[in-house]
Amino acid sequence: HMNDPQMTDVDRIAADPTDVPDPIDRSSPATVNVELETRELVAEVEPGVTYTYMTFDNQVPGPLIRVRKGDTVNMTVTSHEDNTMPHNIDLHAVRGPGGGAEASMVAPGETETFQFKATYPGAFIYHCAVPNLDYHIASGMYGLILVEPEDGLPEVDHELYFGQNELYTTGDVSQDGHHDFDMDAMTAEEPTYVLMNGESRAITENRYGPVTVDVGDTARVYFVNGGPNLTSSFHPIGCVWDEVHPQGGIGGPPHRNIQTTPVMPGSATIATMHFEVPGPVKLVDHALSRVARKGLLAVVEAEGD
Amino acid sequence: HMNDPQMTDVDRIAADPTDVPDPIDRSSPATVNVELETRELVAEVEPGVTYTYMTFDNQVPGPLIRVRKGDTVNMTVTSHEDNTMPHNIDLHAVRGPGGGAEASMVAPGETETFQFKATYPGAFIYHCAVPNLDYHIASGMYGLILVEPEDGLPEVDHELYFGQNELYTTGDVSQDGHHDFDMDAMTAEEPTYVLMNGESRAITENRYGPVTVDVGDTARVYFVNGGPNLTSSFHPIGCVWDEVHPQGGIGGPPHRNIQTTPVMPGSATIATMHFEVPGPVKLVDHALSRVARKGLLAVVEAEGD
Amino acid sequence: HMNDPQMTDVDRIAADPTDVPDPIDRSSPATVNVELETRELVAEVEPGVTYTYMTFDNQVPGPLIRVRKGDTVNMTVTSHEDNTMPHNIDLHAVRGPGGGAEASMVAPGETETFQFKATYPGAFIYHCAVPNLDYHIASGMYGLILVEPEDGLPEVDHELYFGQNELYTTGDVSQDGHHDFDMDAMTAEEPTYVLMNGESRAITENRYGPVTVDVGDTARVYFVNGGPNLTSSFHPIGCVWDEVHPQGGIGGPPHRNIQTTPVMPGSATIATMHFEVPGPVKLVDHALSRVARKGLLAVVEAEGD
Ligand SMILES: [Cu+2]
Ligand SMILES: [Cu+2]
Ligand SMILES: [Cu+2]
Ligand SMILES: [Cu+2]
Ligand SMILES: [Cu+2]
Ligand SMILES: [Cu+2]
Ligand code: NA
Ligand code: NA
Ligand code: NA
Ligand code: NA
Ligand code: NA
Ligand code: NA
Ligand SMILES: [Zn+2]
Ligand SMILES: [Zn+2]
Ligand SMILES: [Zn+2]
Ligand SMILES: [Zn+2]
Ligand SMILES: [Zn+2]
Ligand SMILES: [Zn+2]
Ligand SMILES: [Zn+2]
Ligand SMILES: [Zn+2]
Ligand SMILES: [Zn+2]
Repeated sequence: HMNDPQMTDVDRIAADPTDVPDPIDRSSPATVNVELETRELVAEVEPGVTYTYMTFDNQVPGPLIRVRKGDTVNMTVTSHEDNTMPHNIDLHAVRGPGGGAEASMVAPGETETFQFKATYPGAFIYHCAVPNLDYHIASGMYGLILVEPEDGLPEVDHELYFGQNELYTTGDVSQDGHHDFDMDAMTAEEPTYVLMNGESRAITENRYGPVTVDVGDTARVYFVNGGPNLTSSFHPIGCVWDEVHPQGGIGGPPHRNIQTTPVMPGSATIATMHFEVPGPVKLVDHALSRVARKGLLAVVEAEGD
Repeated sequence: HMNDPQMTDVDRIAADPTDVPDPIDRSSPATVNVELETRELVAEVEPGVTYTYMTFDNQVPGPLIRVRKGDTVNMTVTSHEDNTMPHNIDLHAVRGPGGGAEASMVAPGETETFQFKATYPGAFIYHCAVPNLDYHIASGMYGLILVEPEDGLPEVDHELYFGQNELYTTGDVSQDGHHDFDMDAMTAEEPTYVLMNGESRAITENRYGPVTVDVGDTARVYFVNGGPNLTSSFHPIGCVWDEVHPQGGIGGPPHRNIQTTPVMPGSATIATMHFEVPGPVKLVDHALSRVARKGLLAVVEAEGD
Repeated sequence: HMNDPQMTDVDRIAADPTDVPDPIDRSSPATVNVELETRELVAEVEPGVTYTYMTFDNQVPGPLIRVRKGDTVNMTVTSHEDNTMPHNIDLHAVRGPGGGAEASMVAPGETETFQFKATYPGAFIYHCAVPNLDYHIASGMYGLILVEPEDGLPEVDHELYFGQNELYTTGDVSQDGHHDFDMDAMTAEEPTYVLMNGESRAITENRYGPVTVDVGDTARVYFVNGGPNLTSSFHPIGCVWDEVHPQGGIGGPPHRNIQTTPVMPGSATIATMHFEVPGPVKLVDHALSRVARKGLLAVVEAEGD
């Protein structure tokens, strides 16, 4: 038996994939202030299906944070007063205990700030890292921090942002009602949903519409895999990754002409593509039962001819 | 209760690993015609165990297609008149909707042709991509297209072709009878069999015999992982990969002296080895319960001294 | 119902991560004698939980073997007279049948010796490779052989050694008593425990204490994934891998600034880090339910300021 869907706190939990800060226009380090609010809230996985998400700033994945190698970051984490659990943040760009988790633990209504220096470039996951961290990440508490190299990244026409995570619930996929978290399913690594940007097929015509680009454009995708458990086989249907930075690290030679790149849970990638022909490019985890059965899909539509 | 084995439509479904087209002997692009027939048929997984496969050209993996970067390919897909389902083809070498899937959908008895230009080099999977694509790929509908770089690949003594996929059935491994497809097992990513070239231990002395090479020889392996869900940890027991092109892409520096290379579902690899000593080299997914319990094994026998 | 814990044969099964042979101080090849004893014994997974391990030299992972490219190795394998099963060794550094497994099969009380030449550099797994090899590896029969390149590896302050494997038992995690091996769980790839150095949280303050280093130090980690089935997403919480040799191969360019590196079952990695700030660095498989639910954790504590 399933409970009825709950009232939702927000209309949309899926991060906008085009909501990426501009490239950094500085040639020297700076001190940057970043603030994230942790918040538990009810939203729809798909129409008729609700879940109590945990988020950074009411979206999944959380906001893309963009800094430059050498920057000093003042990281502030707040916890919404209506929360019921402690939260914190571990950024893989941070050197220090728990990647910042120990310094940022916040009870409902609290705020903590800590400082770190971004010493190495790349795209890194951030995530909640309380003791039940797999539950918090599965429920949406992850995002991406981009640490630009000193010379920046090559210019592209579009920068896009996507994140993948598993949802472990007591219901079946697409079963109407409010889905409760299922600890046994998570322990067995057997998710109900596997999602791109936190909702079933959010960035497709079913929900908020595809991202649109023009034929002839280039795009760089920042992709983070929250997991907490599954490896993503990240593939653009109808296209290819021109260049991939494996696991998001910048510093080694990129891989070229890659159809499908592994992105581990707790990792990320930077992957570029370009559009020679019109039509949809579908971003998937090529473990295809997650696409055909568990809601994972995002679409980039190339317009023109 | 299990049904009796069914009458088989073919004696063998396993692709011959030595059936690889010759290297391309051209220094300029050409227009190439490729034709594949989709066909559903009954064959043996192992003696006494039958399954209704879906194939390209009656073999698993489907034929290795070989073209050159810059070539224009006229791709024709037919559907055998006895088929019961629609089929199509998505090639990861294709730019365009569904990698060609939208242009190639064929009902039983139909034929479709579309044209694409091979613009980037590497070894790429092709596979059926109808809505139930995980079911079709699990049942055998995948293969490999090699897009040679303009300068070709280094000469080797042997080129070999292998493919891995999972079989999800209502029976247990080696249980006599006809095995039906099991949708729940596929959704849970819990296969009955994991196979090399579509049958249990096909390329070993149990069935069609190992591939033979001579001590002193070099070999290049084209390996495709259909999945649809599992990552392969591709390893040659008793040998090492001299060079690996991760995920089949050509363009970045190869990895060297690699024991085990990840090949994601919906991906491929190009891996070379050489034979210094006589005896068997066993190709496996080093997730060893798939080898010890689920039928995955292929053998290359080095003869001489 | 669970049986009572059994009497243990040893107080500790976890390999000491600092027990790494010194770098090789030779500029020409040598003949090296290596001897390993296979032994089945009862030890604690965690206090109150016992299991009948299988080991090389009474530890998990087995001893780190260190040779130089070009060396000739006389490999001797013995089997303790109290053993109940045959054992052998497959080293991924060996060219030849079964990586040495065919030449080294030993019944209880027996000894076998074979010779091989280390022809390629890297960090390679060794493991038992009898027909039920997944059971033997899951029970602890794996380790790492380092084949140094001719010019050696860069100097570092610390070299550390860790290994990961799954334990498949009829009990639940942390359930008091003697846990029997569970073949069905292994076939389903659903482990009870996932462990670093063979015991639950062995290299933490819970058991034998963390490894300690000083702020300012560099460290190179040799990490082997026995599996037998799961891929490890190897990550240092609160730090980053400065350089990674993917899958342990030496010869290609290393990856740099890597947060999480895939280490396949039946593979290894060489990964370096350095310590700029005090506090714990926690080594994990970032498939975090294995950390939060199944015992996987090791800690390196950086002291100073
Ligand atoms: Cu949290
Ligand atoms: Cu993390
Ligand atoms: Cu089909
Ligand atoms: Cu595909
Ligand atoms: Cu053994
Ligand atoms: Cu092995
Ligand atoms: Na599972
Ligand atoms: Na569920
Ligand atoms: Na599963
Ligand atoms: Na089955
Ligand atoms: Na399972
Ligand atoms: Na168990
Ligand atoms: Zn545009
Ligand atoms: Zn595709
Ligand atoms: Zn182009
Ligand atoms: Zn030959
Ligand atoms: Zn091996
Ligand atoms: Zn690489
Ligand atoms: Zn050689
Ligand atoms: Zn020190
Ligand atoms: Zn530093």
